[in-house]
Amino acid sequence: MVDNKHSHIVVLGAGFGGLEFCKDFQDPNTRITLVDRTNHHLFQPLLYQVATAGLSAPDIAQPIRSILSGQPNLTVLLDNVVDFNLAKKQVILTGNTLDYDYLVLALGGRTSYFGHPEWERFAPGLKTLEDALRIRSQVLMAFEKAETEPTPDAHEHLMTIVVVGGGPTGVEMAGACAELTRHVLKADFQRIDASEARVILIEAAPRILGNLPPELSASAQRQLEHLGVQVRTSTKVKSITQGRVDLENGETIWAANILWAAGVSATPLTKKLGVPLDRAGRVVVNPDLSLPGHPEVFAVGDMALVLGPDGNPVPGVSPAAMQMAKHTARIIENELAFQGAVARPAFKYWDKGTMATIGRSAAVAKVGKFEFSGFLAWMAWLVVHLIFLVGFRNKIAVLFQWFYSYITYKRGARIITNPPCRLEGTAPTVSIGTGEKPA
Amino acid sequence: MVDNKHSHIVVLGAGFGGLEFCKDFQDPNTRITLVDRTNHHLFQPLLYQVATAGLSAPDIAQPIRSILSGQPNLTVLLDNVVDFNLAKKQVILTGNTLDYDYLVLALGGRTSYFGHPEWERFAPGLKTLEDALRIRSQVLMAFEKAETEPTPDAHEHLMTIVVVGGGPTGVEMAGACAELTRHVLKADFQRIDASEARVILIEAAPRILGNLPPELSASAQRQLEHLGVQVRTSTKVKSITQGRVDLENGETIWAANILWAAGVSATPLTKKLGVPLDRAGRVVVNPDLSLPGHPEVFAVGDMALVLGPDGNPVPGVSPAAMQMAKHTARIIENELAFQGAVARPAFKYWDKGTMATIGRSAAVAKVGKFEFSGFLAWMAWLVVHLIFLVGFRNKIAVLFQWFYSYITYKRGARIITNPPCRLEGTAPTVSIGTGEKPA
Repeated sequence: MVDNKHSHIVVLGAGFGGLEFCKDFQDPNTRITLVDRTNHHLFQPLLYQVATAGLSAPDIAQPIRSILSGQPNLTVLLDNVVDFNLAKKQVILTGNTLDYDYLVLALGGRTSYFGHPEWERFAPGLKTLEDALRIRSQVLMAFEKAETEPTPDAHEHLMTIVVVGGGPTGVEMAGACAELTRHVLKADFQRIDASEARVILIEAAPRILGNLPPELSASAQRQLEHLGVQVRTSTKVKSITQGRVDLENGETIWAANILWAAGVSATPLTKKLGVPLDRAGRVVVNPDLSLPGHPEVFAVGDMALVLGPDGNPVPGVSPAAMQMAKHTARIIENELAFQGAVARPAFKYWDKGTMATIGRSAAVAKVGKFEFSGFLAWMAWLVVHLIFLVGFRNKIAVLFQWFYSYITYKRGARIITNPPCRLEGTAPTVSIGTGEKPA
Repeated sequence: MVDNKHSHIVVLGAGFGGLEFCKDFQDPNTRITLVDRTNHHLFQPLLYQVATAGLSAPDIAQPIRSILSGQPNLTVLLDNVVDFNLAKKQVILTGNTLDYDYLVLALGGRTSYFGHPEWERFAPGLKTLEDALRIRSQVLMAFEKAETEPTPDAHEHLMTIVVVGGGPTGVEMAGACAELTRHVLKADFQRIDASEARVILIEAAPRILGNLPPELSASAQRQLEHLGVQVRTSTKVKSITQGRVDLENGETIWAANILWAAGVSATPLTKKLGVPLDRAGRVVVNPDLSLPGHPEVFAVGDMALVLGPDGNPVPGVSPAAMQMAKHTARIIENELAFQGAVARPAFKYWDKGTMATIGRSAAVAKVGKFEFSGFLAWMAWLVVHLIFLVGFRNKIAVLFQWFYSYITYKRGARIITNPPCRLEGTAPTVSIGTGEKPA
């Protein structure tokens, strides 16, 4: 298809998909340019631990250049994608235009509010390090504010955390928040009793962790309730405003801390591709993961919609992104080696299992036909996350933090920093208010 | 003077002075209220390592509540000091007014631009975690930008770091920046050679580290130059604008990264006390550290001016702040125990020594009559800083980071996050520009 010596692959995004492609692609004569809007690969599965003061931001982030410094055929650019010109085989960046022979789209997803972008202001999602640091500061700050407020009403408002969405992220956030208030903050305040904080997990479906078998959902709910989390299934959110969640059943929950873990959609950049998208903005790719009408363009990970062996869409999880990246690498390597005209196999997703952690010695996991919960699932979760966390330093640092927290019931990153500015114009800062609740 | 059972001490600031007072004050019947504008004690001597990507922010910050949780007579408030009413014995906070019997002022200092506040915008100082994270992001971002710029002129501009001020902070910053560019970033870029970055340390006096004996200053300069730092003594800054330093000798240095380590003044809150201040805004305290005319108010640390045994002002270093805090604690304990009317001894500063680190195995130190430089001084510096770093977790985490960096020549916190917003209205964000230099 193209001359090997001069082939240029552009990879957009250094998440699990983009990074795996770059590490896995074998032909050293092909130039690769990897573009990301940050300088680091973020290990998103542990982001909730940064948000709940268990880990430092650098513990789960690794400089992209550092990870890939051994590959002389690879250039890393820190830049934003602005637009595509698929007809001319070009990607337009803020400071540059790149010509490609192959394009690998691995731009991931973002928090989705199901047509209610105005909720973002009051219920931040958790996709970036900035999100995590903002949530950490906000929750810790609410307890500081409660300590200075005189009325029980204000205490209750400030010490209520609502997590919307009972998928793995929501379950992990709710469990971690409950442990933070009950174990970590409990001893440190005088006027308030932080262990009286309410953590409420809201899920629209009849059970949490809908991707797992019903008995594991039930186990997860029991484990959460044991930690003090109120789990409310079959409960739909009608509206979210400052410090307030209104439910469809007419009930109102006053909460200074509202965290959104209910939805993910693909990056809005997919709209610029001019190809069919699903409702979540994902690119409906061919079975080989290429874009309809553009065999030289592939989409992998959270921004791609492809069906798994069970006929359901492949889930937006990191193993799926990595498998798609490997599949794409094999196709491109083959075509370059045989100068094109090679049959392309269809992508086959291999589901390695699903797990979610709830707290100390509390988790659920499904691996093949085996289902675990409690301590065994928790140990499995720890080991898997340490193995996949990128970077030796980070593995050791995280292992130490976990060991320290397990022994002492403390958290190592309990610091409030000023909220980082969002560089995009749209997103708001989150403020804490108690003034809205009627007396 | 006041009734023991109902005495209330208000301590403002949880830096080295304020924290030491709270830990050291022995009378459990006296109520203490400690106020700080952050929730953490910051170990400022290692702040430059956060700025140069060696350490994570939480490694050098410890929650104040956590440090003092064993003291039931002590309340911690996260709040800002707005004003004082010394006549009524009141401190006015944003959300509260506190009555006190004794007041301990330990509000520390801030970066001073010697009457040129407009320079702050272009040459950030290093006093808070937010400062450190901003500098880290800015310097790393400049190298990322250099990688995408085509012209050698732009490379040179983006890869030049000017540190203004040759005291310990400036020396440590310059050394750490040189190591960052020469060892850490060197391998990771393709279009630029990060080891060609220029680091220039500018000092107005004839030698750096003016507080140390001349032979140690000379040694420090040699060690810096060995790392590739250009040390320019007897060099005065005339003006600083975006990406540009103009010197009094007429020379102009173009540098995308200008860091300010030249001056510290006391918190501007001292102006609200209505007592005599020196030029740096420090309170000119009595020999017992109390304020003139206010025996129940004490000032300790960087905001207090008191003379040492050599007739010079006691320097603004953490051991001095801690000694002043202990002195104040003894005076107040005595007066409460004997119901006032006890003679107050004068504060005596015991100079334990001075040290500054320059890089791997490179440092200078003076302890009593002994002077060290090189590896021995560096080991002494490491040990002293680990001992005084607050928190067991932090000691282990920092020890691991240092060991890791020493072995691998890598840095564990090389991540760019969006610049944090300053909450104060005055301070600017720092942008990187290459456009100003004439072609």
